[in-house]
Amino acid sequence: MPQGKPEVVPGDGLTTRQRRNRPVFAVHTGAMKGKSTAAFGMALRAWNQGWSIGVFQFVKSAKWRVGEESAFRALGALDEGGTVEWHKMGEGWSWSRKQGNEEDHAANAREGWAEIKRRLAGQRHDFYVLDEFTYPLNWGWIDTAEVVETILARPGRQHVVITGRNAPAELVAAADLVVEMTKIKHPMDAGQKGQRGIEW
Amino acid sequence: MPQGKPEVVPGDGLTTRQRRNRPVFAVHTGAMKGKSTAAFGMALRAWNQGWSIGVFQFVKSAKWRVGEESAFRALGALDEGGTVEWHKMGEGWSWSRKQGNEEDHAANAREGWAEIKRRLAGQRHDFYVLDEFTYPLNWGWIDTAEVVETILARPGRQHVVITGRNAPAELVAAADLVVEMTKIKHPMDAGQKGQRGIEW
Repeated sequence: MPQGKPEVVPGDGLTTRQRRNRPVFAVHTGAMKGKSTAAFGMALRAWNQGWSIGVFQFVKSAKWRVGEESAFRALGALDEGGTVEWHKMGEGWSWSRKQGNEEDHAANAREGWAEIKRRLAGQRHDFYVLDEFTYPLNWGWIDTAEVVETILARPGRQHVVITGRNAPAELVAAADLVVEMTKIKHPMDAGQKGQRGIEW
Repeated sequence: MPQGKPEVVPGDGLTTRQRRNRPVFAVHTGAMKGKSTAAFGMALRAWNQGWSIGVFQFVKSAKWRVGEESAFRALGALDEGGTVEWHKMGEGWSWSRKQGNEEDHAANAREGWAEIKRRLAGQRHDFYVLDEFTYPLNWGWIDTAEVVETILARPGRQHVVITGRNAPAELVAAADLVVEMTKIKHPMDAGQKGQRGIEW
């Protein structure tokens, strides 16, 4: 956790309050676990603020339901806290891109982005998670320049977190906050398989 | 997310099932945001499995209540999912170590660890978050060798996640999973201050 002391005082003409309340555009990238989990951890704070949360998962299969989804559906149904919408873009999408119909995936990804664009324009949510969104960008399904332009020009106070490996350079350049999750050691290196409660 | 394919098949004499169900000891370290948030993201999965979750925050002030805490208290109170205990060790503990009585902090930290040790021996929880636990280790308040020995010898299937900067080498050596959160870019570099819903 940062200590809250900015390293420089910017000459942007904004008051501290205005500067404090600027919406954040964050990117979680790198080869290691923690990109999505940290984004969902951030979403817990958003929930606690009573914010409207929109999660858009770009690669996971619609059949794949991670623990975070169940937890946020439960949180979103409570009287306290914020609301949660959880969307998974596509049936049979594969993280490794080895199965399914690639053309359909590209069309689904573009459809997902078009919907997010509409929501950003309409200020539908306070906090967006675009989970594993770097993949359709890297595969050329969605235009990165358009994404950057749309996010930078978004109205109001909408926070956006994008996760996924190999974040495009334009995305990194445009983001306020970029974290790289780096592998020091992974159990799979020692032959450990994924397990429930940990990997999903 | 890992693809679930181990890179090597170990010659440890365990069945795949035994190997799959080995408890994980994870360390989230590095200078950047995301260490604790990713640990709490993992805890969402644990909650979804119906597991007993124990969170022990070693540095944050007892007055400091992050959004994650409120969210987990809400989740823990539901009929579905797991149970949540959230403990903050000490009043007035400071992340920057600039305020409060250092001697009391050391005693409080040791007391916290003694309680965790008892719980591990009694298999009290399925999933432990020892948040910002590297600090009392690095400051010499708690003996790292004893922590490593205790965690490696813990009975049953108890998952342990330790977060904090500068994880001691013995901890990294002993852990199954070590992620480093690396800063690529942070809004505070550009004068941005912390804001609610994002930093807490």
